[in-house]
Amino acid sequence: MARQIYDKCLRDTNRKGFEAAQVIVPFYVTEMLKSVRARFNEATLARQMSPDTPPPAPLRPVRSATPRTVARFWEKLTQGSASQADAAELADEASVARAEIFSRNIENYIGTVKLPVGLIGPLRINGLNAAGDFHVPLATTEAALVASYARGAAVATKAGGINTAVLYEGVMRTPAFRFDSMLKAGLFVEWVVGNVDRLKSVAESTTRHGKLISVEPIIDNNMVFLICRYTTGDASGQNMVTIATNALCEAISQDCPVEIERWYIEGNFSGDKKASFLGMVTGRGRKVSASVTTPAEIVQSMLGTTVGEMLDYGKVANLGALLSGQMGAQAHYANGLAALYIATGQDAACVSESAVGYTRMEARGDDLFCSVTMPNILVGSVGGGTGLPSQTAALNVLGLKGNGKGAALAEVAAATCLCGEISIVAAIAAGHFARAHETLARQR
Amino acid sequence: MARQIYDKCLRDTNRKGFEAAQVIVPFYVTEMLKSVRARFNEATLARQMSPDTPPPAPLRPVRSATPRTVARFWEKLTQGSASQADAAELADEASVARAEIFSRNIENYIGTVKLPVGLIGPLRINGLNAAGDFHVPLATTEAALVASYARGAAVATKAGGINTAVLYEGVMRTPAFRFDSMLKAGLFVEWVVGNVDRLKSVAESTTRHGKLISVEPIIDNNMVFLICRYTTGDASGQNMVTIATNALCEAISQDCPVEIERWYIEGNFSGDKKASFLGMVTGRGRKVSASVTTPAEIVQSMLGTTVGEMLDYGKVANLGALLSGQMGAQAHYANGLAALYIATGQDAACVSESAVGYTRMEARGDDLFCSVTMPNILVGSVGGGTGLPSQTAALNVLGLKGNGKGAALAEVAAATCLCGEISIVAAIAAGHFARAHETLARQR
Amino acid sequence: MARQIYDKCLRDTNRKGFEAAQVIVPFYVTEMLKSVRARFNEATLARQMSPDTPPPAPLRPVRSATPRTVARFWEKLTQGSASQADAAELADEASVARAEIFSRNIENYIGTVKLPVGLIGPLRINGLNAAGDFHVPLATTEAALVASYARGAAVATKAGGINTAVLYEGVMRTPAFRFDSMLKAGLFVEWVVGNVDRLKSVAESTTRHGKLISVEPIIDNNMVFLICRYTTGDASGQNMVTIATNALCEAISQDCPVEIERWYIEGNFSGDKKASFLGMVTGRGRKVSASVTTPAEIVQSMLGTTVGEMLDYGKVANLGALLSGQMGAQAHYANGLAALYIATGQDAACVSESAVGYTRMEARGDDLFCSVTMPNILVGSVGGGTGLPSQTAALNVLGLKGNGKGAALAEVAAATCLCGEISIVAAIAAGHFARAHETLARQR
Amino acid sequence: MARQIYDKCLRDTNRKGFEAAQVIVPFYVTEMLKSVRARFNEATLARQMSPDTPPPAPLRPVRSATPRTVARFWEKLTQGSASQADAAELADEASVARAEIFSRNIENYIGTVKLPVGLIGPLRINGLNAAGDFHVPLATTEAALVASYARGAAVATKAGGINTAVLYEGVMRTPAFRFDSMLKAGLFVEWVVGNVDRLKSVAESTTRHGKLISVEPIIDNNMVFLICRYTTGDASGQNMVTIATNALCEAISQDCPVEIERWYIEGNFSGDKKASFLGMVTGRGRKVSASVTTPAEIVQSMLGTTVGEMLDYGKVANLGALLSGQMGAQAHYANGLAALYIATGQDAACVSESAVGYTRMEARGDDLFCSVTMPNILVGSVGGGTGLPSQTAALNVLGLKGNGKGAALAEVAAATCLCGEISIVAAIAAGHFARAHETLARQR
Repeated sequence: MARQIYDKCLRDTNRKGFEAAQVIVPFYVTEMLKSVRARFNEATLARQMSPDTPPPAPLRPVRSATPRTVARFWEKLTQGSASQADAAELADEASVARAEIFSRNIENYIGTVKLPVGLIGPLRINGLNAAGDFHVPLATTEAALVASYARGAAVATKAGGINTAVLYEGVMRTPAFRFDSMLKAGLFVEWVVGNVDRLKSVAESTTRHGKLISVEPIIDNNMVFLICRYTTGDASGQNMVTIATNALCEAISQDCPVEIERWYIEGNFSGDKKASFLGMVTGRGRKVSASVTTPAEIVQSMLGTTVGEMLDYGKVANLGALLSGQMGAQAHYANGLAALYIATGQDAACVSESAVGYTRMEARGDDLFCSVTMPNILVGSVGGGTGLPSQTAALNVLGLKGNGKGAALAEVAAATCLCGEISIVAAIAAGHFARAHETLARQR
Repeated sequence: MARQIYDKCLRDTNRKGFEAAQVIVPFYVTEMLKSVRARFNEATLARQMSPDTPPPAPLRPVRSATPRTVARFWEKLTQGSASQADAAELADEASVARAEIFSRNIENYIGTVKLPVGLIGPLRINGLNAAGDFHVPLATTEAALVASYARGAAVATKAGGINTAVLYEGVMRTPAFRFDSMLKAGLFVEWVVGNVDRLKSVAESTTRHGKLISVEPIIDNNMVFLICRYTTGDASGQNMVTIATNALCEAISQDCPVEIERWYIEGNFSGDKKASFLGMVTGRGRKVSASVTTPAEIVQSMLGTTVGEMLDYGKVANLGALLSGQMGAQAHYANGLAALYIATGQDAACVSESAVGYTRMEARGDDLFCSVTMPNILVGSVGGGTGLPSQTAALNVLGLKGNGKGAALAEVAAATCLCGEISIVAAIAAGHFARAHETLARQR
Repeated sequence: MARQIYDKCLRDTNRKGFEAAQVIVPFYVTEMLKSVRARFNEATLARQMSPDTPPPAPLRPVRSATPRTVARFWEKLTQGSASQADAAELADEASVARAEIFSRNIENYIGTVKLPVGLIGPLRINGLNAAGDFHVPLATTEAALVASYARGAAVATKAGGINTAVLYEGVMRTPAFRFDSMLKAGLFVEWVVGNVDRLKSVAESTTRHGKLISVEPIIDNNMVFLICRYTTGDASGQNMVTIATNALCEAISQDCPVEIERWYIEGNFSGDKKASFLGMVTGRGRKVSASVTTPAEIVQSMLGTTVGEMLDYGKVANLGALLSGQMGAQAHYANGLAALYIATGQDAACVSESAVGYTRMEARGDDLFCSVTMPNILVGSVGGGTGLPSQTAALNVLGLKGNGKGAALAEVAAATCLCGEISIVAAIAAGHFARAHETLARQR
Repeated sequence: MARQIYDKCLRDTNRKGFEAAQVIVPFYVTEMLKSVRARFNEATLARQMSPDTPPPAPLRPVRSATPRTVARFWEKLTQGSASQADAAELADEASVARAEIFSRNIENYIGTVKLPVGLIGPLRINGLNAAGDFHVPLATTEAALVASYARGAAVATKAGGINTAVLYEGVMRTPAFRFDSMLKAGLFVEWVVGNVDRLKSVAESTTRHGKLISVEPIIDNNMVFLICRYTTGDASGQNMVTIATNALCEAISQDCPVEIERWYIEGNFSGDKKASFLGMVTGRGRKVSASVTTPAEIVQSMLGTTVGEMLDYGKVANLGALLSGQMGAQAHYANGLAALYIATGQDAACVSESAVGYTRMEARGDDLFCSVTMPNILVGSVGGGTGLPSQTAALNVLGLKGNGKGAALAEVAAATCLCGEISIVAAIAAGHFARAHETLARQR
C-alpha cells in the first residue's frame, strides 16, 4: 500500500514541482528528498523497513566477566563483521587478563578502547582547593585540542597562575509525587516540611559521605517534585544521591498520611545528564569559578594578538551565544571537559550538563581579565571510573587521586577550561583558528 | 590588607549572625562559608592565592610523538606525583610502540587511557540507512549503563526492530562580520547574496566531500552572521566546514566592495560543542528519528511494568523537563551517546550538543509507541578518531567503518538512545531504578 | 476525609518540626504553609473547595452590542459587587453610544476602560521606513515610564536621531499533521514539496495582502509541522495567516494521497503569543534594528553619567540576562512596547513575544553606540484595534495610520524601545533608578 | 561613498546572481533585498539616513498635568499629523477634566485611550483565596478573544468550578556588586550573610507591607548578584521592592568593610518585565495553579469535541512548545492576562513575564483534567493603576478592589487563563479555530 501511495506521490511531485518548490522550500529539504528517492525503490523499502526474518535472540548478559566470557563474545562477533585483528585490538592481552577488574564498571565486557592522552602544563593554579603546578592529562582523538589548551596553560601560568574557587556544592535528585488533587499535594508538602529532619536522617543513613543539604518542593497542581540536594564528599555522587533519595521516598511512602497515587525516584527535573536552566541558575554538582589577568605583553608575545582584539571578539562571541539560544556563553568548555573526564575516569556523559557556563573577558587597565564560571562540574577523586588502572594513573599525574581531592579536581577542570577559552578566543581573534586546524588536524 | 578586611568580616559575622541568617539565606550558602572559614587562615590564604615562587616553564610541545618523547615526559612526571606504575599503565608497551600513530590525533602524547567496552545487541534496526542486526559497542566506566541499554535493545528487537531515518543533514559554521553601520551590513548581505554561487564554488574547492547547501544571513544592526550549512559526506565534518568557510571568508574579504571592519571564522553562533536552541530547532549535523512500537506483553514480560505505567511516568518526565528548563525532553541520551562516541572514535565533546532531543511515548492500541528525534547527531564513519586501532575495531564490530556508512552510524546512535530511553523509563516506572544502581554500581 | 488527613498532618508537623525544617527547607515554603494554616480550618476548607450551591448559569453571549445590551449587563453587575458609579465609569455616555463600533472588536461589551496617554518626542528617526520627527503616544498606568522614555528620546534626537531598518518580515502559522508512521510522514513531506506552488496559490487566494514566502517542514517521527511564513502587508496579520493556512491545510487534506490521521491548524509551534527561541532565532512578524551613537558630552549633560559608566553597567546587565536564563538580553522593552501597542490599537498580548531581543552598547571612540534588534515586532497600521476612535487618533499623532505605514510603525516601536534602554541604563549606572521611582511613582 | 559602494554592489549582484542565490539563500532574504532596492536610490537614501535639518527640541516635560498642559500639547500636535478630531478622541471632556488624577500615573499626559471591555462569567472559582462566582472584565481589541474565554468559563463553571491556590509568593529585586577579585566577592558574601538580619530591618523600614523573605547570593567570579525576594502584601510591589532594596544596598555600601568597586540596584537578573528561566523555575510574583475536571458529556455538548480529541491535540501542542523552544508549554495565556491586566489597572508590560507556565491535560477516567500553573503572576488589588476611575470600576465588577484581595486576584488571573486554554484547545481539536476567527474577526 505504501508503494501505491509512494507512486502517487512521485507522479504528483514531478521534477518541475520540485524546481518550483525550491523558491520557498529550503534547499536542504529538496536535496534530502531527492537523495532518498534516488536510493529508494519498492524492493529496498520493503526489505529494510519490515524485514521478514525473525528477530535475533539477545546476547546472554555477562555481569562478571572472565577471559572466557570475553572469548565467547568474540567468537560470535568474528562470525560477523569483525575480524580477529579487531578482537586483538579491543581484547588485547592486558584487557583480557583484567576482565574481572573492568567488569566492576561495565557489563557484557569485550575489551578496552584505547584513547591517546596528551599533557598540558605545568599549569599553575592558585586556588581555594587546588594549589600548585599541575600536569593535566587530556584524552582526545581530536588533533589540535591539546596543543590549543597547552598554549592557554602556558599563557595563564606565565601570567602568574589561575585563581580558582568552588563556590557551591550540591548534587540533586528530584523525586516526583502524584496526588489526586492539588489539596493533597499541599498537605503532602506540609507533612514533608514538618518531618524533614527525620527524612534527612533516613537519607543520610544510606551513605557515609552524603549529606542532604536542601529540600525544595516544586508544586505543579497535583504533582510535587522535591529537589533534594546533597553534598557528596569526594565522589561525584550520582549513585549516592539516588540511593539516599530512594530511602527518603520509601520512608515518605510508608509514613505520610496523605495518599500518594504514585511516586518516582526521579521526575526528570534534576538535570542529570542534560543541560538545563535549573542547573545553570542554581548549580548542580560543584559550581567553580576560575580567572586570570594576563598582561598585555604576554597576549602579544605568546598569543600573537592584542587585548583589544580579544575583547572585540569576545563581544561578538557573546552576541552569537545569545542570538543562537545557548545556555550561558562560552566557546568550547566541552572539549577540555570531555578530555579531562575521559582521562581521569569521570562520567563522560556528564559533559552534557557540565559544558554550560559563562566566560567573561574584560580590560583591566591594559591587561586582559578572563574568567570562567561553571555551575555544573561533576567530578570525583574517588568512585566511578577513578579506580581503573589507567584512570588512576592519570589522576596520579595530577596528584589528585583519593580522599580529600574532589574539590581540587573540580577547580582543575575549570582552570583547564579557562586555558581553552583564552587560546581559542586568541586564535579566532588573530585569524589563526582555521590554519591551526588545517595544520594539525588535516595535513598530517 | 585582605587579612584585615577578612578579620573585620569575621568580627561582624559572628556565630549568632550566621544562625539568624539561616532563616532567609539558603543553608548551602552558610555551610559553604563555614567550611571555607574552617580551613582558611592568613597563612594558607597568602600561600595559596598569591604564591611567590616563579611560575614554572611550560613543557616543550611535542607534535610528532616517538617512544623517546613519551619517555621524556614520564621522566618529568615521575619526579612529581606519578609513579613508575602509573607510567606503565598509560605508557604500556603497545601505546609506546604506536606513538606515531596516536600522535596524528593528539599532541604531547604520553600514552593511552583504557576504557572498558561492553556490548549490546544484536539490535535489529530497520532503517533508511542502517538495516540489519547490530552489535553495538559502548565504552563507559559507569556500571549498569550497558545492562540497561542491553535490556532496551532486547525489547526493541523482540518487538520487531527499530525504524530509523536521517531526516536532515547539515553541519554549520557561522562566520561573523562587523561593519561600521547597519547600512553597510545591509549592502554586504546584498553583495553576498548576489555572489553566492561563486562563494559556494570557493568553499567547495577546499574539500572533496563537503557541499555548501545553505547560506543564511542573520543581521544584528552592524553585525552579520552567515549561517553556512554543509553536507559533509561520511565524516562528522567539523574541520572540513572550518576550512571551507575560511576560504569563503577570504574570498569575501578580498572581493566584497563593502568595507568590513573585522571578520571572524566563527561568531560562536553555530552551536559547535554546546547545546543551543538554534541546533535544536534547525538541526546541526544529522537529524535522526528512531521509533518502535512494543507489544503490551513484551513490556510486561521483559520490563516488569505495564504500558500504562510507562505512559504515566512519561508525562511526569516530560513535565519535569519543561519545569526545569531543559532543551527538548528526554531521559539520558548522553549516556548512550558518550559510550558510543568514545568506543567508535567520535568527538566525545560533541555529546554536549548531541544530547538534545525529544522522546515521545504514546499508546498505540494496547501497545507502546516510543520514539526519539535527535537533531544534532555528529558522527563519522571516516576521519577523526575512527582510524585509530581499537576505534576501528569497534566500528568493525558494528560493520560501519569507512565510506558510505556515516548516515547508518547516525541511525545506530539514535536507535541506541531509544533503547536507553525505553529501559530507564521502565525502570523508574517500575520502581527498579535505584535498586539496579545499588546492585550493579555499588554493592560489587 | 481531607479533614482527617489534615489533622494527622498537623499532629505530625508540630511547631518544632517546622523550626527544624527551616534549616534546609526554603523560608518561603514554611512561611506560606504557616499562613495557609492560619486561615484554614475545616469549615472554610469545605465551603471554599467544594461549594454545594449549583453553579450559576452563564451570561447570555452578546456579539453585536447595543446600548440595551450594555445596560442589561450592568443591571446584573450592579446586583453584585459593582455600583452605579462603576457602571458610569466603564459605560460612560460615549462608550454606550459607540457600542456597535466597539463590538466589532469584542464580545459581551460592557463599556471601555480609559488608560492615560503620555507623549514622548519629537523623536527623530532616520530609517528605511520611518523617516522624520515623531511624537510617540504611550498608554500606561506606571508612573515614571513616560518620563524615562522621553528622556531617552531627547538624548537620541539630540544625537542626530535613530537609524532604523526592518531586516526581515514573516508571520508564522504552523499546522501539525499526524501520521501512523514516520514513512508516511516522509511521503507527506515529499508530496507537499512537490505541490507547494499550488498550495501557495490556495493560501494566497484567501487574502489580498498575505503572501506565503516559506514552507519549512519539521519532522518528529510521525508528526510533521509545516512552518508557513507570510508577509502580511500593513496588518499585523495574525488572523490573515490563520485563514490562509486553514485553506492550505484543507487543500492538503483533500488532495494528498498520503493518509493523514489528524491535522491541526496550529501545532503550538509558531510562537504566537509567547516568547520562543524559534521566534528569537528566525524572527516572527518584523525583525527591526535601531541604533544611535550618542556623543560623550550629551551622555554627561543629559543623562548625568558617563559613557564608561554606562558600558560598565551594560556588561553587568548582559551577564545578569545570561545567568538568569533570559531570551536575548535587554532591559525593559516590554514597558515601551506595551504602552505603544495599547495606545495604537495593537494586540497587547503580543508583548509576550515582541519583548525579546538584544540591546548592545559599545564604545565608538569616546561616544556611546547603542542598538536594539527585535526579531518579533507584531504591529499593523491597519486592522485589529487600529480602527477604533481613540486608537486611530493615537496613530494619527504618529502620522502612521493606514496603508503603507506598517513597516514604519515597526521601526517606531524599535526606536522607542531604544530610547527606553538608553534611559534606564543611564539611570541605573548613575544610581538614579530607585530615586526616580520614589519621586515619580510613590511620593505623589 | 555609500553610493559608490552601493552601485558596485548592484553591478556585482545582477539579476542572474540573485536568481542563482535563491537555491541556497532563503527566499525571504532575496525578497527583502529586492523590495529595499526597489525603493532605494541615492536621493532617498541620503535624505532618510542622514537628514541635514537640525534635530527638533524636545517637548517641555509635564509632570503635573492640567487641562491647560493638555491643551498645549494638542496645539502642537494638531500642527502636525493629528487633527482636531483626534484631539477630541483622546482629550475628551472627562479625560481633560481628570488630568490631575491621571497624571499621578503618567507624565506628559495628553488624554486617554479607550479600550473596549467584555465580560465573561459568572466563573465559579473554588480557591484558597478566591471563592465565589466572578464576572471577569477583559479589555481587548481582538475579536473572538472574549467569546473564547467566555466559552471556557461556562464549561468550567458547569463542571463545578475551578480550584485555585497561590503556591508561592515573592517579588525579586537583584542588585549587583562588582569587586576587584573573587576573593573580595567571597568576603562580601560572608559579610552580608553575617549581617542579614540588620539588612532585613533596613529594607523593611522603607515599607509597611513588604517583607524580605530571602537573600540568595549568586557569584560569578568577582561579581555578586543578591537575589532579594519580598512578599509585597496586596500590591504587585515592583516599586516597593526597588525602594527597599535600594535602602539595603545603601546600608551595605556604608557598612561593609569589603571594598565594593560599584553596585547597581538591579543587575538585570530578576526577570523584571521579561520571560526568564529563573522566574519560571523559582517563581516571581505569585505562583498560582488552577485546575478543573470536566465531565466527558460537557466536553461534547459545550465544546463540540471529545476528551480524546483534546488529549490528542494536547500532546501535539506540548511537542510544538518543546520543539520551538518555548518556556513552559501553554497555548495563549498572554491573551487573557493582557486583557485582565489592562482592564484592572495592572502593569500590562508584566504580561511578558506572566505569560509563562504549563498547561496540563490528562484523562481522569472518562473526563478531562486540565490545569494551568503560572509562576509569575504580578497583580495587585491596590497601587499602580488600580486607583484610576475605570480600572477601579473593573476591579469592583470582580469585587476585588482594595486590601486583602491581591491573592484572590492572582487566582482569578490563573482561572481565567485556564478558561482560555480549555476553549482554544477544544477549538483547534475540533477544527473550529480558523472558522471562529473568520466569523468573529474578519467578516463583520
